[in-house]
Amino acid sequence: MTEQLPARKSRRGGGRDARRSARAGGDASLAKPFITSQIAPVDILSDEGTKIIENNAETLLAEIGIDFRDDPEALDILRNAGCEIDHERVRFPRGLARQLCSTAPSHYRQNARNPARSVEVGGNNMVFAPVYGPPFVRDLNNERRYATMEDFRNLVKLTYMLPGIHHSGGTICEPVDLPVTKRHLEMVYAHQTLSDKPYMGSVTAPSRAQDTVEMSKILFGEDFVANNVVISSLINANSPMTWDDTMLGALKVYARHKQAVIISPFILAGAMSPVSVAGTLAQTLAEAMSGIAFAQAVNPGTPVVFGSFASSMSMQTGAPTFGTPEPAKVLYGCAKLARRLGVPFRSGGSLTASKTADAQAAYESAHTLAPTVMAGTNFVLHSAGWMEGGLVADFAKLVLDADQLTMVPNLVDGIDLSENGQAVDALRETGPGQHFLGSSHTQANFQTAFWRSSMADNTTYEQWSSEGEVASAERARKRAADMLAAYQAPPIDPAIDEALRAYIDTRMEALPDSDY
Amino acid sequence: MTEQLPARKSRRGGGRDARRSARAGGDASLAKPFITSQIAPVDILSDEGTKIIENNAETLLAEIGIDFRDDPEALDILRNAGCEIDHERVRFPRGLARQLCSTAPSHYRQNARNPARSVEVGGNNMVFAPVYGPPFVRDLNNERRYATMEDFRNLVKLTYMLPGIHHSGGTICEPVDLPVTKRHLEMVYAHQTLSDKPYMGSVTAPSRAQDTVEMSKILFGEDFVANNVVISSLINANSPMTWDDTMLGALKVYARHKQAVIISPFILAGAMSPVSVAGTLAQTLAEAMSGIAFAQAVNPGTPVVFGSFASSMSMQTGAPTFGTPEPAKVLYGCAKLARRLGVPFRSGGSLTASKTADAQAAYESAHTLAPTVMAGTNFVLHSAGWMEGGLVADFAKLVLDADQLTMVPNLVDGIDLSENGQAVDALRETGPGQHFLGSSHTQANFQTAFWRSSMADNTTYEQWSSEGEVASAERARKRAADMLAAYQAPPIDPAIDEALRAYIDTRMEALPDSDY
Repeated sequence: MTEQLPARKSRRGGGRDARRSARAGGDASLAKPFITSQIAPVDILSDEGTKIIENNAETLLAEIGIDFRDDPEALDILRNAGCEIDHERVRFPRGLARQLCSTAPSHYRQNARNPARSVEVGGNNMVFAPVYGPPFVRDLNNERRYATMEDFRNLVKLTYMLPGIHHSGGTICEPVDLPVTKRHLEMVYAHQTLSDKPYMGSVTAPSRAQDTVEMSKILFGEDFVANNVVISSLINANSPMTWDDTMLGALKVYARHKQAVIISPFILAGAMSPVSVAGTLAQTLAEAMSGIAFAQAVNPGTPVVFGSFASSMSMQTGAPTFGTPEPAKVLYGCAKLARRLGVPFRSGGSLTASKTADAQAAYESAHTLAPTVMAGTNFVLHSAGWMEGGLVADFAKLVLDADQLTMVPNLVDGIDLSENGQAVDALRETGPGQHFLGSSHTQANFQTAFWRSSMADNTTYEQWSSEGEVASAERARKRAADMLAAYQAPPIDPAIDEALRAYIDTRMEALPDSDY
Repeated sequence: MTEQLPARKSRRGGGRDARRSARAGGDASLAKPFITSQIAPVDILSDEGTKIIENNAETLLAEIGIDFRDDPEALDILRNAGCEIDHERVRFPRGLARQLCSTAPSHYRQNARNPARSVEVGGNNMVFAPVYGPPFVRDLNNERRYATMEDFRNLVKLTYMLPGIHHSGGTICEPVDLPVTKRHLEMVYAHQTLSDKPYMGSVTAPSRAQDTVEMSKILFGEDFVANNVVISSLINANSPMTWDDTMLGALKVYARHKQAVIISPFILAGAMSPVSVAGTLAQTLAEAMSGIAFAQAVNPGTPVVFGSFASSMSMQTGAPTFGTPEPAKVLYGCAKLARRLGVPFRSGGSLTASKTADAQAAYESAHTLAPTVMAGTNFVLHSAGWMEGGLVADFAKLVLDADQLTMVPNLVDGIDLSENGQAVDALRETGPGQHFLGSSHTQANFQTAFWRSSMADNTTYEQWSSEGEVASAERARKRAADMLAAYQAPPIDPAIDEALRAYIDTRMEALPDSDY
């Protein structure tokens, strides 16, 4: 992929505009646009185990097959690529899927309208995006209710201002107050104008994917979109082993424009996959390879991400559970399988089944985020704000999770072994029984030495108590309200804004009001 | 170390008694006595970096030196071992400390009075012990107040019943309603009689360490204690680079009885060590080696643990902070340094600065526990119940943290690659678009397949709401109250119990009531 910056950057928010925008975004100016890890990914799947899983995935692809439903064109494309088609069942002769996947790039740059926000997806880079898909919100009054377009805008604004999050995401919540046929237009527009971070596109119909592409052409320029990635979109499998025409249709639109697609088996293990880690790994690999192979068959060189969303199921109640060991093992395993396939990897996040931002929510989120980071995941959807197994976007949790994300760069940058890092002079200067607070090394380094949470309360009990014993979720709601009050939109060329609104108006008029 | 079981086990709670005891402890009967990891420890300190740190530690030991204060005997022992002594400053010629450390065993078994509870410390094993040291509790009414002996007993009872915790610990809270001179007797007795898990000894004076040894002889038999480890005790350095006579005195008592000592630099980085990871690593290694070397000089072959307690400091307020990246890096680094020294490693836990069991508490605890586990830490003090930077033992958090600990065995047992684990037949049987709930593989495996939290609420919002919207800390207080109501003491030989009480009575009479 070309990695040039947008040609018309001075008109598009680059340069002075970008600096102004960063100031408007408060401490967002401190954020790096993405994270580059200096530590090796954790590897708990042995090389022998990897071969077993890869072999089982090939068996699945060749003998069991994958359904590509209600999309005759997809079947034609796959037949031409060498697959065996039996009604809608597609079988990939051994080795074919992996061979088709080989034209996928190992990494890609997703451009933001502010070039300082563009992200590299793949390699040892890590990009955090917010929660995706919830029909409900838990709002600033701690009320749980259906999400609206106003919530969507506010969540995009917060995501823009939160330095831990690199990507504006996609369906940060479902604005159910707008018809399904039209809401994608306002959602894409909100990402394009209320933020200058990169964004995701609509996948609920091919025409809506096309709208996303057209609106991106207006924002970035037609030439730029023709030669650069400006959209990454989420293509979920209907696990087990099924792709439907909606997802395939959106995939084809994006692939034909060489926009990135995140091919994600979505698995509640035990229900949608075998009740075992190795079985889930083989199925995830087979599904991901089938989708990536299809994308490459549609348009070789299409940027893809190997996605895996895996949750365990309570085998007693059928409820999805998060922050548990088995999905962590699936995550570590899939990360290695993706590295071997030579494509970027998406998984993890800050997942929880809790109904409120309590200790359960934080334990489960942290025990999802830790393996996400240690596995070297490249693209992390749901990295902040996810609640109730994805049913709810929680304003407080968005802020709390995003605060946790800001520590990841300090964790993955390795151990500084420079002379200054070794601090032998400080040890000599201070010596036994003394404290280091006044040493010249401390004075020179203390401002940048240690990561500091902006949400943790580290005061004494007495101070915390005198200030009303405010727990962290309540502090986060207050913080979110303050941030929204201080929000300033990143500047945009008025002519572009007008063109976007005109496109939306035209489409709104053409489209019926309906909820499918 | 000999690894034989207690000779008089049938009289001491082994065999039938142990089974009865396990039943009395409820689901404790399901617990393995410790965890054995099947995955490689995470390694973020390069081999080259390791050599740099080890060299700097030798420089510190040889050129800067370590203070051994107010203990002339300790200075004599170290002089005889080859150290250079300058007043109380002890310098170890390069290589000497490491050489002295070489007589320490690579692992040891700490025996419990119930042999089924004995733990292996070292190698790829992991032992979880509860919080240690808090003068305050947050109790079942969510009230924060000074701790009492009654709290101590209740926390020991809960720890006995919680299957995630393998070790009864030591000063699980400070019973401030008893004189300092006498409280250790009741504390040791509580561990010995209310639980049958292994325990730690008193370290606040040599005579109190001796009391612990004498009481252990009564419980285990004199011969058994002479030949087996039945106590592991915490010997903290006064970092930087200082040992005081209290800790040295306790260390000598335990070492002379070949009971295990956990040699722990206690470092708030930035105040008690340089404000850098590599500087803190070198200092921790030097301090730990000096303490381990001293223990070996006192009695070669004494079982030791290389301990590290490291927190970062907010360089803005001076407050200790937890769950942050820099202590995680110190932990990973120290774990590797301990492996190279060939001794077991202690660090980590479920640490937090939060004042209540809220999201902050859980994020920080999880982001301490995750590196603790992934580094392959052998002995984990503070693994449950720690609050407010160690000032408070929280009943609710003890239960919540311990629930999280129960998932660790499932995380570190690797990926099952047996035929059953691969589940290819389940994939064939089910196929595209079907669910796996009814497959024969699922039916055969669902009961043991996935870890399940006993504290998480995974129900729907509607159910959770109709049940009163109870957040996790409140659920935990209820659980703790229920457990205490159901508590049954593990059986003990009445003659032994009588002998213990007689020893305590005699000592109580002999000791003055004072608070130092």
